[in-house]
Amino acid sequence: MSAASAARRVDPDLEIVVLEAGGHAAYGMCGLPYYLSGLITRAEALLAYPPEFFRDQRRIDLRLHAPATRVEPGRRVVHYRTGGREHWLSYRRLVVAAGGAPSTPPIPGLDDERVFTVRTLEDAIRLRSLLDAGHVGRALVVGAGYIGLEMADALAARGVTVVVAEALPGVMANLDPPVAALVEEEVRRNGVDLRLGARLQGVRRTADGLEATVDGTALTVDVVIVAAGVRAATSVAAAAGAATGPGGALLVNDRMRTSLPGVYAAGDCIAPHHLLTGRPTFVPLGPAANKTGRVAGTVAAGGDASFPGIVGTAVVKVFDLAVARTGLTLAEALAEGLPAVATDAVGRSRAKYYPGSEPVTVRLVHEIGGRLLGAQFVGRGEGVAKRVDVVAVALQAGFDVADLADLDLSYAPPYAPVYEPVLLAANAAVAATPPAVATPVPEAAEV
Amino acid sequence: MSAASAARRVDPDLEIVVLEAGGHAAYGMCGLPYYLSGLITRAEALLAYPPEFFRDQRRIDLRLHAPATRVEPGRRVVHYRTGGREHWLSYRRLVVAAGGAPSTPPIPGLDDERVFTVRTLEDAIRLRSLLDAGHVGRALVVGAGYIGLEMADALAARGVTVVVAEALPGVMANLDPPVAALVEEEVRRNGVDLRLGARLQGVRRTADGLEATVDGTALTVDVVIVAAGVRAATSVAAAAGAATGPGGALLVNDRMRTSLPGVYAAGDCIAPHHLLTGRPTFVPLGPAANKTGRVAGTVAAGGDASFPGIVGTAVVKVFDLAVARTGLTLAEALAEGLPAVATDAVGRSRAKYYPGSEPVTVRLVHEIGGRLLGAQFVGRGEGVAKRVDVVAVALQAGFDVADLADLDLSYAPPYAPVYEPVLLAANAAVAATPPAVATPVPEAAEV
Repeated sequence: MSAASAARRVDPDLEIVVLEAGGHAAYGMCGLPYYLSGLITRAEALLAYPPEFFRDQRRIDLRLHAPATRVEPGRRVVHYRTGGREHWLSYRRLVVAAGGAPSTPPIPGLDDERVFTVRTLEDAIRLRSLLDAGHVGRALVVGAGYIGLEMADALAARGVTVVVAEALPGVMANLDPPVAALVEEEVRRNGVDLRLGARLQGVRRTADGLEATVDGTALTVDVVIVAAGVRAATSVAAAAGAATGPGGALLVNDRMRTSLPGVYAAGDCIAPHHLLTGRPTFVPLGPAANKTGRVAGTVAAGGDASFPGIVGTAVVKVFDLAVARTGLTLAEALAEGLPAVATDAVGRSRAKYYPGSEPVTVRLVHEIGGRLLGAQFVGRGEGVAKRVDVVAVALQAGFDVADLADLDLSYAPPYAPVYEPVLLAANAAVAATPPAVATPVPEAAEV
Repeated sequence: MSAASAARRVDPDLEIVVLEAGGHAAYGMCGLPYYLSGLITRAEALLAYPPEFFRDQRRIDLRLHAPATRVEPGRRVVHYRTGGREHWLSYRRLVVAAGGAPSTPPIPGLDDERVFTVRTLEDAIRLRSLLDAGHVGRALVVGAGYIGLEMADALAARGVTVVVAEALPGVMANLDPPVAALVEEEVRRNGVDLRLGARLQGVRRTADGLEATVDGTALTVDVVIVAAGVRAATSVAAAAGAATGPGGALLVNDRMRTSLPGVYAAGDCIAPHHLLTGRPTFVPLGPAANKTGRVAGTVAAGGDASFPGIVGTAVVKVFDLAVARTGLTLAEALAEGLPAVATDAVGRSRAKYYPGSEPVTVRLVHEIGGRLLGAQFVGRGEGVAKRVDVVAVALQAGFDVADLADLDLSYAPPYAPVYEPVLLAANAAVAATPPAVATPVPEAAEV
């Protein structure tokens, strides 16, 4: 809908058709855990706009329950199915915004209706009705990444007994282990039965509910939530010959053009340019999805726009912790062959004397020579999420750790200590002499 | 103490003497309003470290109640007074860190002991004891800048009836009027009797307390708080011949060297380089004070460090509003002769469907051609203060508004909407075509 809306802004007279596989358009997918937890009462709250808004105000021919099934790029025709029948449309420009689809491992029993992948509003409404009816006492969540932990949090908030099974040895594989360990601690502290290095082997329906086998142990649960990652939903575009890259995602240029003439792509089904690695990377997250949608729609409608790329900034709330990252982790940087080191520091969210001041753990990843490569943050409170943005901007500016230490950041006791955690970590990184471990810089006086 | 501590890190054997006029060193001056409001119970909580820490751990010869009275830069001698007697010390390097001093207008009666300038811990302890004893029912605050409004907030929290008299036509002259108007509204909503364009003419002691005359009207109050700005406390250094600039502040280079040989300066008594105007600017705030202290101490002790400058980032809590600025206001930019415009936008602090989502007002100041010059933010909640930091980094990177719109900022419903207020404002600024007013960009879908 970002693409369609952008196209309308470029050309008031364009005929714009949107084919949507599901029954809802433009809803807050990232809000689903909060709808399940009950924090958001009604599913309608997640809709950015009702379908009528797009139809009447933006004059977009939005067709719901109309999955695209095949593209013929040579003839510029797209086939779709609706009302049990096959249809086709010819197009001048096509924007593929098919999104991500949950990865489901090839494990027997995952087709049971009590096994969920919470990727659509329909999934969430169905699971929420089970929760509201008191039918979910025990749940197994498969996967301890962002989505798995958000789901564990949401279910625990409903009083559900939650087991999380993660095949890898730690939670949140996209964080460095010392940072992920803080998240693991928070998950366990909240009563979740977290099983690491544990694989789901099968699910079967019993008289009692579901029997899930995890590493040979049978667990009796009411529902299973599969949160084992996301892949790009590109089967239709790839079948038409569009070039794909990491995660099976579509390759695009900075104008969101795919390898097929007249075909653009945007959102969670593409691999945008990563500004630090210089390569396409599959990081399916909302902000880039929206921005690339806007660029694809603008360019497809004859306007000009471009998208320079991402640095991989993300934040997630896991129980009371905000967990954020940007750029590369140490593991990712080393895998890129970069001469990377990490500097860790623990600052505070507010002046230490101000009520509610909490520790903020910062890991800066940088080259031995100082070039900033990334950061990870863990802490309680709203400010943590925004602190990662400071480093995200610094990465986009190509800063080194000395530049970071020189930043003129805001200070008032209710919002930050006079040495912001970011600055504290940057000072420690500057003081670190290669290849030694960072020497901690004594905390300066509060002013 | 930042300078002294930095010097110690450079040279473990250096003899370091600190002369402090007051009875406390290294305390959180910015915490004084929260100590007065009672949010911080004990004054000791504001001390970063007790004097013994500096004396014993850092081997710094800290002399309290020892104001420096005269410097002889030729002979490298500093005179000071303590215990009612005159003393002198010879030095190899001198760091002037005399701080700021409250500006007190030449108005009769301000020498009364019930008239306060809350700049030192001693002042605050004395005022707090009056509050705790129930002796303050009515207060007049003179000045509606940062400090005046923080004081009004603190006094109102103690149940004091507060009148604020500001000589200028609006509150917070360092914000553009439309942004300051939001602050004014918040102050009035909280029951403060705010009188704009109103001058204090005199104060006299009566049987009832104090009678303050504001624009010819007599007000009976228990205390008067003068918060009429800060000047650099440079009389001693200036008398020795050190060059001064705006606000009477000492001029220094990026190594914190003054115009006098062997004399460095740091903190609120200097005018650091402003990265946007390219000129020394007097913006006495904690973060730069600490950083320049560290640089001055390091260089004075024979080490190497430098301070590139400031962009004028500041945040203040006024009742429930966070009010932040960085760079130049529109008024400041126009006064610099820059072809500046402002773009205003109202975003949200969280996804609109997430509980506690609040409006965040953003003003971006930029050149007509796009170069970013500054930003102002007003909103409720912790995240506002950190959002200004995103723009502070962008200013230090020399970004234009299109770069700002491309930033890969963090998103999760509890912490931000998918279009961060900063990005929303940046998009509006990009869309603004000179010299027209910005056209609002329709909000994109939440993802």
